[in-house]
Amino acid sequence: MDARRFIRAKRDRNSHSPEDIHSFIAGALRGDVTKYQVAAWLMAAFLNGLDAAETEALTDALVRSGQVFDWSALGRPSADKHSTGGVGDKISLILAPLVAACGVMVPTVAGRGLGHTGGTLDKLEAIPGFRVRLSPDEMRHQLDRIGVVMVGQGPELAPADGMLYALRDVTSTVEFEPFIVSSVVSKKIAEGAQTIVYDVKCGNGAFMTTLAAARSLGRRLVATTRALGRKSSGLISDMNQPLGSCVGNALEVREAIATLRGAGPPDVRGLTLELAARVLEAAGADSSLEGARERATRALDEGKAWERFVALVKAQGGDPASVEKPERLGSAPVVATVTAKRSGWIGSVDTFALGELGVRIGAGRRTSDQAIDPRVGLVTKARLGDRVEAGAALTELHLTSDNPKAMAEAAACYGISETPVDAPPLLLETLDSP
Amino acid sequence: MDARRFIRAKRDRNSHSPEDIHSFIAGALRGDVTKYQVAAWLMAAFLNGLDAAETEALTDALVRSGQVFDWSALGRPSADKHSTGGVGDKISLILAPLVAACGVMVPTVAGRGLGHTGGTLDKLEAIPGFRVRLSPDEMRHQLDRIGVVMVGQGPELAPADGMLYALRDVTSTVEFEPFIVSSVVSKKIAEGAQTIVYDVKCGNGAFMTTLAAARSLGRRLVATTRALGRKSSGLISDMNQPLGSCVGNALEVREAIATLRGAGPPDVRGLTLELAARVLEAAGADSSLEGARERATRALDEGKAWERFVALVKAQGGDPASVEKPERLGSAPVVATVTAKRSGWIGSVDTFALGELGVRIGAGRRTSDQAIDPRVGLVTKARLGDRVEAGAALTELHLTSDNPKAMAEAAACYGISETPVDAPPLLLETLDSP
Repeated sequence: MDARRFIRAKRDRNSHSPEDIHSFIAGALRGDVTKYQVAAWLMAAFLNGLDAAETEALTDALVRSGQVFDWSALGRPSADKHSTGGVGDKISLILAPLVAACGVMVPTVAGRGLGHTGGTLDKLEAIPGFRVRLSPDEMRHQLDRIGVVMVGQGPELAPADGMLYALRDVTSTVEFEPFIVSSVVSKKIAEGAQTIVYDVKCGNGAFMTTLAAARSLGRRLVATTRALGRKSSGLISDMNQPLGSCVGNALEVREAIATLRGAGPPDVRGLTLELAARVLEAAGADSSLEGARERATRALDEGKAWERFVALVKAQGGDPASVEKPERLGSAPVVATVTAKRSGWIGSVDTFALGELGVRIGAGRRTSDQAIDPRVGLVTKARLGDRVEAGAALTELHLTSDNPKAMAEAAACYGISETPVDAPPLLLETLDSP
Repeated sequence: MDARRFIRAKRDRNSHSPEDIHSFIAGALRGDVTKYQVAAWLMAAFLNGLDAAETEALTDALVRSGQVFDWSALGRPSADKHSTGGVGDKISLILAPLVAACGVMVPTVAGRGLGHTGGTLDKLEAIPGFRVRLSPDEMRHQLDRIGVVMVGQGPELAPADGMLYALRDVTSTVEFEPFIVSSVVSKKIAEGAQTIVYDVKCGNGAFMTTLAAARSLGRRLVATTRALGRKSSGLISDMNQPLGSCVGNALEVREAIATLRGAGPPDVRGLTLELAARVLEAAGADSSLEGARERATRALDEGKAWERFVALVKAQGGDPASVEKPERLGSAPVVATVTAKRSGWIGSVDTFALGELGVRIGAGRRTSDQAIDPRVGLVTKARLGDRVEAGAALTELHLTSDNPKAMAEAAACYGISETPVDAPPLLLETLDSP
């Protein structure tokens, strides 16, 4: 691998062959290609672009940089769902046991919170005792027994992705679609899911704020996944307000539990069922989307998903009493209600700012070594289009101590309109067309 | 210094403030800014450009990264000439003592060969005993005594330039005008020259192959030097054939000696006098270019430049007998003459290929740790526009051993035309206008 020639090719707007991309990534992982050469290439690619074939080759190179799990010997289909990140998105906690309860294995390798968005691993760790590191043998045994695992990414999976991500972070080359796609898809393929369904978030609380950007990312996620031999489909869903009411780790686990037990907010329940149906259909467990929807709804309403969730918690060392009696998950010492200054209709929610506020009060982290307080967060009391009277609750802050500044900031996230506002649709588009 | 923000600014085509450029370079030298961050910035700047103000600030930051010599206490003007690199360019060896003989100090910090071009330091080291490393005190003492020093770049001068150059080399970001300008100008300013005259080479043996590229580089060199408070002017000169007859280190020293003693090829003598005149005029030693030309010609013809050269060789430990009797510089064991296959006029000389051939037979180096054989090289016998008969000498190869392949390659560098060809002008343009 002549790294200088490779960098020069992208600098001069030429295309890379798949073989060259593989050699460059393999060389970078071995250290034959230096980190500063990788950094220069990241910037050249960011500015001059990577086409679909290059994105596929990069994704494949990241996959092959480590182990690729293969659960096919267990004799059942496997599938997973990936969300591009939002505020209050606890769908994975409900969907994974639900899909497993419908006969499709879910070998989830999940991530931690990033920026203003939450992470599934952080939520799971709000359950006392829950272990997010399992050996491949433990994963295989648990998948065979209960059809679902939810773990963190070990160093054996796509190590080149971790190296690239660390360099992207310090060289300001994070926000580039081909890098985002290769990072997401490589991890999902390495975890061994044969079907991957994407929930691309769009709105002021998502990384993609426009429908055009979300559509472009979603289509490239699906196309890249299919190009690498896995089944794939997806949705674009609204992220102009938090999903559900709860934002914060233990609070979101409680809301997931409520949904698994047949209650929960309608948007959380609805989006979970829609995504689960697409997972089941794409995985071949049902021949029609309608049939898959009915099956998922039945599994949720009959308590099968909840049973599978409890089994998951037990299998990974979590305290089952803490999910059966969710008040045992712990509560923040201070709960303060932010109220509307005037009457009207909720016209806007600055979801990014609410997510950032959550991080500031302790629900997320700025750097990877920061600790999280699972108890803190916020519970929204008003949604887009709702009529509110002056003095009515907009959101509850769950805090470690009094924090008038946070309350003022939370209030400023809500725009109140003098005229009625339509509630936005939750599902914006499907990504099913090839 | 927030390196990520700085990189992002150039990534997004914004301009840097001089303060930010200084902080970034200072941080990189301290190690607070990582090499991979520097590498990403180099590529972003390469692709999105640096304007004149940014180039000046970068040059200034490189100058200030180390010591800046100041010889003004010695009470005489100081000046230097810099060539952008060609084949057979031994002008510095003649010009430095010539200018010193005219009363202007020349504190040359010279470089080694780069790619297919030769380097002044390598030529000086063909003189037995010549020391190219002097302490600042030795430099001061010698400048005061004989008005000229010729040394290599120590770690005290523009260390950030060395760091940037090493990263540019491995990240394919070398060929970018603002980087070339900042690297050249920073070293010349740090050496303490108050006047800097540029000889921008243009043609198939130069880094700049078109007049437009040479003009752009030359203007930016002069403008950046003036912006940093030094006097500057320059020329664009032809490099579509080697300068003079000799290419190779000892061979070029001999040709320089011949010129210093009043003989030498007309192009070498003419270009040296023209550049020396511009140095003397810009440094204020003469009020007119015509007067400066006369003074330089007189100093050369009266042997004053030659006397100063011998003093320089003695002062830096070189063997004066080896320059007074240049046959003592050593000769290659094999001299083979390459002849014309057919009669005609010399229509083209592939000067880049001749330079590369010189490197291959041992006159230059591919990597910084390679040894050079000072004896080898080539002596051209025919120039553009010359009439040659079949069997006449085109060039002599000075070799360590028989090398039929090198002879065939040398022959292939000459294009022979069936119709007469005009000899090209040596001086193409001046760079005097501000």
